[in-house]
Amino acid sequence: MSFITLTTDFGNKDGYVGTMKGVIWKICPKAQIADITHEIPPHSIFEGAFILWRSYSYFPVGSIHIAIVDPGVGSKRRPIAMKIGNHFFIGPDNGIFTPIINDAENLKIKIDIYHLIEARFFLGDISTTFHGRDLFAPAGAHLANGVSLSELGPKINNPIRIDFPVAKKTARGWKIHVLSIDRFGNLVTDFRGDQINETKKYVIKVKDSQIKGIAKSYESQPQGNLICLVNSAGLLEIAGVNCSAAQITRAKIGDDIEVVESD
Amino acid sequence: MSFITLTTDFGNKDGYVGTMKGVIWKICPKAQIADITHEIPPHSIFEGAFILWRSYSYFPVGSIHIAIVDPGVGSKRRPIAMKIGNHFFIGPDNGIFTPIINDAENLKIKIDIYHLIEARFFLGDISTTFHGRDLFAPAGAHLANGVSLSELGPKINNPIRIDFPVAKKTARGWKIHVLSIDRFGNLVTDFRGDQINETKKYVIKVKDSQIKGIAKSYESQPQGNLICLVNSAGLLEIAGVNCSAAQITRAKIGDDIEVVESD
Amino acid sequence: MSFITLTTDFGNKDGYVGTMKGVIWKICPKAQIADITHEIPPHSIFEGAFILWRSYSYFPVGSIHIAIVDPGVGSKRRPIAMKIGNHFFIGPDNGIFTPIINDAENLKIKIDIYHLIEARFFLGDISTTFHGRDLFAPAGAHLANGVSLSELGPKINNPIRIDFPVAKKTARGWKIHVLSIDRFGNLVTDFRGDQINETKKYVIKVKDSQIKGIAKSYESQPQGNLICLVNSAGLLEIAGVNCSAAQITRAKIGDDIEVVESD
Repeated sequence: MSFITLTTDFGNKDGYVGTMKGVIWKICPKAQIADITHEIPPHSIFEGAFILWRSYSYFPVGSIHIAIVDPGVGSKRRPIAMKIGNHFFIGPDNGIFTPIINDAENLKIKIDIYHLIEARFFLGDISTTFHGRDLFAPAGAHLANGVSLSELGPKINNPIRIDFPVAKKTARGWKIHVLSIDRFGNLVTDFRGDQINETKKYVIKVKDSQIKGIAKSYESQPQGNLICLVNSAGLLEIAGVNCSAAQITRAKIGDDIEVVESD
Repeated sequence: MSFITLTTDFGNKDGYVGTMKGVIWKICPKAQIADITHEIPPHSIFEGAFILWRSYSYFPVGSIHIAIVDPGVGSKRRPIAMKIGNHFFIGPDNGIFTPIINDAENLKIKIDIYHLIEARFFLGDISTTFHGRDLFAPAGAHLANGVSLSELGPKINNPIRIDFPVAKKTARGWKIHVLSIDRFGNLVTDFRGDQINETKKYVIKVKDSQIKGIAKSYESQPQGNLICLVNSAGLLEIAGVNCSAAQITRAKIGDDIEVVESD
Repeated sequence: MSFITLTTDFGNKDGYVGTMKGVIWKICPKAQIADITHEIPPHSIFEGAFILWRSYSYFPVGSIHIAIVDPGVGSKRRPIAMKIGNHFFIGPDNGIFTPIINDAENLKIKIDIYHLIEARFFLGDISTTFHGRDLFAPAGAHLANGVSLSELGPKINNPIRIDFPVAKKTARGWKIHVLSIDRFGNLVTDFRGDQINETKKYVIKVKDSQIKGIAKSYESQPQGNLICLVNSAGLLEIAGVNCSAAQITRAKIGDDIEVVESD
């Protein structure tokens, strides 16, 4: 089996994603394809990077992850293909793989990056506006067929990275940030569960709201209350019990959150 | 072939559904997975229950239906796995399977329910916020691999049910209810086609609107008119001809509708 | 492998699409199914026709394309099944295949159209509201199983067509039209790249906006500017550089655009 995932900002209304699946199946009919998301806000490389980072490792070893949030399509930005650990990645070299590359470096996992330039793996003439169809889907399908990464182009070692907020220790506790707001209005932050000191007390300040303590589950407080918990990605999350923390706090992606730590 | 369906309120933007597909394929690479819907309004167990009930029986015998609208994730609500007739169901024990269980009881179809507690079928450590990934997807994939329900945990026989409106006979006709409003603005009710007396005349009163008679198809009236018909699920539906009955009537899910029956 | 695509206005929230997949798999368990789109605005045959036309040819030879935007469901409009070139098409005879049929005629590609009436390929009793489930999905699955088109019903040769705008030469240049507005706000027109005379100069007038020249890619101008380019479907497109041309121009589908051609 060959598993391919798709993460884009193409939306689901225009048929762009379906077109990519057709291209993949023409080259690799046995590919099983899963959508991770196509609802990344247009051009938000950051949000695409976060959601791909959170999802990809749950797929089988050897999966091929195509990620396209690509405001620079048709410019000189490089198309790249990579192997990181046991997963493959294909997309524009614009930072969309930043947190995956950063994690791999921190964990000393092998990273091989190639500049995707071998035209024989493309779909005929390349448009300047739809590299998902013309470059990335075909390259992914050829990988799924067993083509090796090194056939796709020369090796490179300077991928573009984007800034990713990092929780910072302060005198009183931590300065952390909203990385993502999900459909439920949960605010996902960059404060990791393993940075929490279980012997300390915490107060979390989001805009005008203030939350005391870190709960174990969504139901630990009455409906309508804000709570903090360590979520399924191992990150501190501000949630509303059966309501939207984003609506209550009016927080936005990138906003600062203050964590006060005390004995 | 092993077919797995997914019905959730996770939305399609955050990658939660893609993550579940990765988990399933890691355990059961041959599984074919279909989305029923992920656009259930957050926490609306009722709407999830209705849409799953309407869809599941069209899938092949032996299909595994994972349904997750789960405001109680992380609390003491039980995870369950069931066989009802020739279909399997997995999800929280919070009433999301109510109409399927009710129908099976009415039709004397065999129901076997198990408390999903055998940790060896879970995905390592269980988060308190994403049982779709950690419990339900893995259990579904193991079932697809041939694990038997009884291996997943002990048998139980008291599943939680939610209230489901039922059309009621009145002196003048029927009191019926809006069960669902679809994308087209059609109002689907709990009045079954087999409860209609073809020798009688009907007037249907929805809020300030009134519809005479039960039509055979959407095109039986001029554009912009409201009509009633028995829909593809065998239920009375109020539809607008090329327009939205929901917009015209301002009806909401759960609203009463009066059906006047006369000779 | 048997590939089936789905293009509808059913939306992704009500489970209608999942139901069709179940029906297909019951008849043809090996079918691989791709969604092209289900977000066609309700009843917009024109938009469904355009998006299917733009996508279908990227799928493998022999693919079966089911397209359902069907305001006339339950009326006397015919259900049809076709082979055009190496692709199969199934849906209502209401014009949704117009641009595909027109192109095939222009290119002298073989077109075979059948009236889908053989009840043994339907799903039991036919509802008057959901032919996607009861007629079109089953017929597509039977085709995928190797049933021949001619078994589905008698041959016909007068398919319904809808009007499709066509770019027209004028004294000063061209009168062209907005065919589609995608998620990014790009305005796709009916002016083909091969109608552009590379030795001429062009000014494009969209409502109150005016664009000089035809660019090569989205990045050829500063952010916020409007540009024109030939897009990945070979059609002139008005795009905003990292912004929405639809928002800036307030253009709508069907609107006229003036192209002034000069030496």
